[in-house]
Amino acid sequence: SFSAITVASSQCSITGIPLVRNISEIPQDNYGRAGLSHITVAGSLLHGMKEVEVWLQTFAPGTHTPIHRHSCEEVFVVLKGSGTLYLASDSDGKYPGKPQEHFIFPNSTFHIPVNDAHQLWNTNKHEDLQFLVVISRPPVKVFIYEDWSMPHTAAKLKFPYYWDEQCYQTPPKDEL
Amino acid sequence: SFSAITVASSQCSITGIPLVRNISEIPQDNYGRAGLSHITVAGSLLHGMKEVEVWLQTFAPGTHTPIHRHSCEEVFVVLKGSGTLYLASDSDGKYPGKPQEHFIFPNSTFHIPVNDAHQLWNTNKHEDLQFLVVISRPPVKVFIYEDWSMPHTAAKLKFPYYWDEQCYQTPPKDEL
Ligand SMILES: [Zn+2]
Ligand SMILES: [Zn+2]
Repeated sequence: SFSAITVASSQCSITGIPLVRNISEIPQDNYGRAGLSHITVAGSLLHGMKEVEVWLQTFAPGTHTPIHRHSCEEVFVVLKGSGTLYLASDSDGKYPGKPQEHFIFPNSTFHIPVNDAHQLWNTNKHEDLQFLVVISRPPVKVFIYEDWSMPHTAAKLKFPYYWDEQCYQTPPKDEL
Repeated sequence: SFSAITVASSQCSITGIPLVRNISEIPQDNYGRAGLSHITVAGSLLHGMKEVEVWLQTFAPGTHTPIHRHSCEEVFVVLKGSGTLYLASDSDGKYPGKPQEHFIFPNSTFHIPVNDAHQLWNTNKHEDLQFLVVISRPPVKVFIYEDWSMPHTAAKLKFPYYWDEQCYQTPPKDEL
């Protein structure tokens, strides 16, 4: 309907957004993934960022990302809770293989080596896991694996990613 | 002395650094600027980042950055305290001119438009101001102004920047 289009386009417009924003007032959504809360703190599609993007994410107990890889850099800063980072560092093989497990905790930081398959879990049954995520070269292009033995070549591109779907506009052919 | 060289080079080596790091255990320093605490959470020179860098900075009451500009993107997430962002948005003029003042507060976020002259102050007399900073294309190349009416062309390049000095190595000539 006309009003739905108006709402969508105003949520996707970078004009009129105040320079200093209260993160508590930025809309959050689970984008169809139960247990997730995602906020785009500074984004390509929402705020005109071209080189970096910042997210605030909260994972309820048991919630996890898909197994995935991307060619952009990604840095995490854990604000609250704890969990497990699964990281398969052998991106030279045909498939990710058995990942290493890394415990993550409040005030910890880590970055994901470019193109390494990884997955984050809130493995703490009692507490939400909250972190800031920084990525380069937004909007993110994610390849998703069904399991750790799926060949790299079979991983499926999810683009635009969940939170970019609403505001992403296919670029004109000559920009591709 | 030999031992000083050893210490410096081991602090600048990216090998042997654990993937998940406790931010509370990462060395902080004021780099000769009273009232500043800077921690490179994920850095180009320290951790091999190529596209993004993350800092945690704390400014004591009255502490401020120089008036400066840079061509990289920069995003702030304020964790604690409050202060003032001074931002001169007319980068088309010959000099920055009178900046606009923006109040910044806990859980606020803002980004600096590329090449706009800006300055951050902890204008709260009673509390430290703490924020995470994200920049693109590290290490940062900063142009410093003595005041808001200094011509853009007179702003002085400070490179490597304060916290990059110890570990920065001049690239071979053919990379310049
Ligand atoms: Zn990722
Ligand atoms: Zn700056």
